[in-house]
Amino acid sequence: MKHKVITISRDYGSGGRIIGKRLAEELNIHFYDNEIIDMAAKELGLDTKAIYDVVEKKSSSFMYTLSTTHFELPLNDQVYSAQSKVIRHLASKGPCIIVSGCADYILQEYNNVYSIFIHATIESRMQRVKAEYDEEHDDLRKYVKKKDKNRKKYYNYYTDRKWGVADNYHVTIDSDIGIDVTVDMIKRLYNK
Amino acid sequence: MKHKVITISRDYGSGGRIIGKRLAEELNIHFYDNEIIDMAAKELGLDTKAIYDVVEKKSSSFMYTLSTTHFELPLNDQVYSAQSKVIRHLASKGPCIIVSGCADYILQEYNNVYSIFIHATIESRMQRVKAEYDEEHDDLRKYVKKKDKNRKKYYNYYTDRKWGVADNYHVTIDSDIGIDVTVDMIKRLYNK
Repeated sequence: MKHKVITISRDYGSGGRIIGKRLAEELNIHFYDNEIIDMAAKELGLDTKAIYDVVEKKSSSFMYTLSTTHFELPLNDQVYSAQSKVIRHLASKGPCIIVSGCADYILQEYNNVYSIFIHATIESRMQRVKAEYDEEHDDLRKYVKKKDKNRKKYYNYYTDRKWGVADNYHVTIDSDIGIDVTVDMIKRLYNK
Repeated sequence: MKHKVITISRDYGSGGRIIGKRLAEELNIHFYDNEIIDMAAKELGLDTKAIYDVVEKKSSSFMYTLSTTHFELPLNDQVYSAQSKVIRHLASKGPCIIVSGCADYILQEYNNVYSIFIHATIESRMQRVKAEYDEEHDDLRKYVKKKDKNRKKYYNYYTDRKWGVADNYHVTIDSDIGIDVTVDMIKRLYNK
């Protein structure tokens, strides 16, 4: 591709989505996040809510679902396949930021795609989740760790990679260094 | 600490040392690399050559040495302990760049220390090793991978961390994006 694309994967609550939004605004390019899932949903003729429940399983482990619920296995695969198709389509359309767990893997063969991974300490992630999401949780640490576990399992299952390993990404950043400096560093990469 | 310190760990041949040198020059701060080992050597009353042979074992695996040669185990531990002492000393003296595999771990409790990990594809690392080091190797790929393995084993043995995992570092960068942009991104972090 001639234009540039930035993919952002992130640990839950690390601010990866906010960073992506800021980047898209400051670089004046498209931002795709839940939109991807919505488009994938439409392609499959499924309603978005059902897909969210599969992708970021709230009440039970993703892999548990995979191994025990026969009906949901093809649904997961369909969701992943549709998401991959949509991500490739969006990336090819023009410069953009794509916030999605497996986008680094899906777009690995493309030129001018820079893959970013955002992480942070569990403490600051808990703080961010508490401040920014309108949700109540008895055990916030446990909830954040469960979200991490599900994202990790989803990624490891659909790629031949391991979640959070530096080699998978062009750049990884601990957002505890600050959102502003994180955005600036990625902008520097985009504008090289 | 009131001043800032940047530690750089790197995969063999990824250009981490060159990046560190450039940063030190452009930021006008101290650069420490083999100097650390030299100082550790002096503290131990050992000659540098002997220490290099232990730290980056050329002819046999580090862990193999650990498990089979009883005489070398305490020497390894002495080297690590002396290196840690020297790294803490240098970091406390003033702003600097420290290129050393375990510095991120050794200085983890200090404020204003930013830990960087530099990696790159095996192909570009082989190219760099070929171009910049005056060494001949029958099987360069095997040689580079052996170097990686030894660094990884040394790190994993002396820290409770795993080599190359994003969580260990504030920033990791694939130097294939370019040395200039890598240096600029780290400078942005230092100057925040």
